[in-house]
Amino acid sequence: MRSWANFNIKIIIRLIGYLLIFEGFFMFLCLPFSWYYCGAGCNSLLISGLITAGTGAILFFFTRKNIRKNIGKREGYIIVSITWIIISLFGTLPFIISGAIPNFTNAFFETISGFTTTGASVLSDIESLPKGILFWRSITHWIGGMGIIVLSVAVLPVLGIGGMQLFMAEMPGPQPDKLHPRITETAKRLWAIYVLLTFIETVFLIFGGMSFFDALCHSFGTMATGGFSTQNDSIAGYSPYIQYVIIVFMILAGTNFTLHYYALHGKLKKVWQNEEFRYYFFLILIIGIIITFFLFVFNYGDFEKSFRDSLFQVVSIITTTGYITSDYLIWPGGVLWVIIFLLMFIGGSAGSTGGGMKIIRQLLLFKNTIAEFKRAIHPNAVVTVKYNKKSVPQQIIFLIMAFFFTYIIIFGFGTFVMTLFGLDFETAIGATIASLGNIGPGIGNVGPTGNYAFIPTGGKWFLSFLMLLGRLELFTVLIILSPAFWRK
Amino acid sequence: MRSWANFNIKIIIRLIGYLLIFEGFFMFLCLPFSWYYCGAGCNSLLISGLITAGTGAILFFFTRKNIRKNIGKREGYIIVSITWIIISLFGTLPFIISGAIPNFTNAFFETISGFTTTGASVLSDIESLPKGILFWRSITHWIGGMGIIVLSVAVLPVLGIGGMQLFMAEMPGPQPDKLHPRITETAKRLWAIYVLLTFIETVFLIFGGMSFFDALCHSFGTMATGGFSTQNDSIAGYSPYIQYVIIVFMILAGTNFTLHYYALHGKLKKVWQNEEFRYYFFLILIIGIIITFFLFVFNYGDFEKSFRDSLFQVVSIITTTGYITSDYLIWPGGVLWVIIFLLMFIGGSAGSTGGGMKIIRQLLLFKNTIAEFKRAIHPNAVVTVKYNKKSVPQQIIFLIMAFFFTYIIIFGFGTFVMTLFGLDFETAIGATIASLGNIGPGIGNVGPTGNYAFIPTGGKWFLSFLMLLGRLELFTVLIILSPAFWRK
Repeated sequence: MRSWANFNIKIIIRLIGYLLIFEGFFMFLCLPFSWYYCGAGCNSLLISGLITAGTGAILFFFTRKNIRKNIGKREGYIIVSITWIIISLFGTLPFIISGAIPNFTNAFFETISGFTTTGASVLSDIESLPKGILFWRSITHWIGGMGIIVLSVAVLPVLGIGGMQLFMAEMPGPQPDKLHPRITETAKRLWAIYVLLTFIETVFLIFGGMSFFDALCHSFGTMATGGFSTQNDSIAGYSPYIQYVIIVFMILAGTNFTLHYYALHGKLKKVWQNEEFRYYFFLILIIGIIITFFLFVFNYGDFEKSFRDSLFQVVSIITTTGYITSDYLIWPGGVLWVIIFLLMFIGGSAGSTGGGMKIIRQLLLFKNTIAEFKRAIHPNAVVTVKYNKKSVPQQIIFLIMAFFFTYIIIFGFGTFVMTLFGLDFETAIGATIASLGNIGPGIGNVGPTGNYAFIPTGGKWFLSFLMLLGRLELFTVLIILSPAFWRK
Repeated sequence: MRSWANFNIKIIIRLIGYLLIFEGFFMFLCLPFSWYYCGAGCNSLLISGLITAGTGAILFFFTRKNIRKNIGKREGYIIVSITWIIISLFGTLPFIISGAIPNFTNAFFETISGFTTTGASVLSDIESLPKGILFWRSITHWIGGMGIIVLSVAVLPVLGIGGMQLFMAEMPGPQPDKLHPRITETAKRLWAIYVLLTFIETVFLIFGGMSFFDALCHSFGTMATGGFSTQNDSIAGYSPYIQYVIIVFMILAGTNFTLHYYALHGKLKKVWQNEEFRYYFFLILIIGIIITFFLFVFNYGDFEKSFRDSLFQVVSIITTTGYITSDYLIWPGGVLWVIIFLLMFIGGSAGSTGGGMKIIRQLLLFKNTIAEFKRAIHPNAVVTVKYNKKSVPQQIIFLIMAFFFTYIIIFGFGTFVMTLFGLDFETAIGATIASLGNIGPGIGNVGPTGNYAFIPTGGKWFLSFLMLLGRLELFTVLIILSPAFWRK
């Protein structure tokens, strides 16, 4: 009773109000494009923005009195999970009001796919949508990416989720005992980097011949590791220059943002000393080279195109972006796509906008397996797992292993649920991992050239849930669903 | 240098010699059937037995002097892995000499599939083989099962493999500090149970109309959770009575053998208090009922047959036996087989002859995930995982989680390797888990009606390796392959 008696519902409502005003503001940001390219449902973004910001203002207004500022862990879990759902609900308004996606399930799927930076789409003809709506679609990615940065660096470590505390708390800043100023300060610095990188990519893309509109949309999709494009064939129709630019920025988006902070302050050595970054870098390099080799030998005979197609797809999947320039499912040899499929289980770096299990988890689990052998051979020796030359507490490894187990169980269970909705086995596997890992394209019928439109309503809701689960590092959502959370 | 200087190669060779004499003896046991039903290669078992037992006798003879009896951990790992390989190599002799399986790769695959109690076969027309050879084929299962019991209950816990020490050491017997008498005593008691259950099953099967030969072969295949049958259509052609008998004995074979010991001593309450057993029992019951329901509604309209087909396949897969009475891949609804597929990842009980990850591991990992939620919500509370009303040390959970991670990585990697050998994705998944989990039938082209003949030579060797890996709880083999093992 103790902790629930103090439960601060008012601050939750107030925060939601605040976020809805913020969301409405971003809807208004789409208005220039909406009006400039004015087509069907020209004012839908204005109306959606007014509804969203208006609702937010009302919530904000009615909770202004006697507010207690204390946010406990319970409030934290609920805030994180519920805000993602509520902004997705309001985020459907532009799609529904404009008639671009009239069906509510489809609109919600597309919106939460945007906010979770997944990039899975129910649209088959993207280019037919009004420009304002497309801009909103891409901006959901960008907002989602902002949310992820603050979550992964500041909020989740405080909530004790996923055992990443040790690696996330390295950002220089105020002392960690003061939660609020630390979150604000850290978030501000990383957001500045996020905005800066988005701006630089936009400039590079415009330089390559993209329109301002397309450049901005694709920069949003890249930096958030989202994957929504404004084109039906994703990035395939663009020049090699543009594809290379997007490769570079996908790699940057999949990197821990605190490393960008160091890099900007000239501490490049510190970046290179980061084990996760080195592992990420060499993984992309080695797998990129292997696939390049086989594409070159089996098929293309064009080395540059083999290299570019290989690298683009490898980077896009490992960072969980999901942009596509070549359909990996029909790559020659019949097995190269399996490498891409296995990459779907790895994911981006911790503290990046990338989804999935994260590279640091895989790295530490591998190291621990090796350590386990040593422990078995020398039972009296103290064998610890080292990361960045420091010993990692057993408790952290423990949490990461529990995360891995839960991830695999959800993946297996999710695949089964999707087959219940009539998907064939391969498509069920693909849709599950592509949603849970926030990737977008999967395998089977939801591969690079497919989309999620054909999936039954129930299946879309389930995949939406998986996107949320994956994006919030599983435990944030699962804890709320556990009976233990609601007891006392 | 210290520990390698003391490395006792002589005792390893002597033990191998001992086991080869033992194996040769079992080949001679096939002679009555070989001579009674005398067909092609009538004397192949006699020749094989002489070669095997002769080689064993030579090794045994030449290591008789100055033998040191100390067996360290290093010797232990090597003995466990290498003996399985060597008895499989000699075990191919009857197949090759008789010409039943003239190809060495195929013969080795069939033999190690037998000794690891997997039951995956390269044979398409089993019934055309000489009876003596079929008997040897079934007896490899039975020997494998004997090996597993002593390994899982006595040897692996001492080697510190897989974190099962706590649950395996409960057998009443001499003090655990005296390794040798304890192994001998425990093994003898459990082997007596194993022999007794095999005998009882044989009697029940003969009572149902089976020939003595078929009854013995199927009892070997059941009690070892192996799955080799003497019939091309496995158990499908036998009467419902026989199918029920085999269901019951598969369940018994998948149960911790120390529980049989208690049951025989009238301590039934102690059996029922065992959490793993209850979980195993209810899992079979619940999934059996669910599948019965859907088979009944969708298709058969015959309740008894629906129930029998459901229960048989559920029990056969969860215990990793692999006998088949109904092709689950073509069950109505198109998704019921996915349930069977997911069961392949669970496996039998610890201390049984069943393979796979084992029920206790799944159970403890689930409990730990729940505990993890509680720990996150109440960071100051001490939350431990309880099993059989006792707290499980974190270290045990830790080892089990490392096992789970390694298992999944090997499964993913194995699937990829199998696609390299030209298998389609579903078949690659099926062949990998069916081998790693020592099940036999998988999904795709290696399903209940398929066999492993079409797999390329390299693929068969790789799958043989996976069978060994799975059977020896991964770490026994992996430790030998790790550089850390060979250092110093």
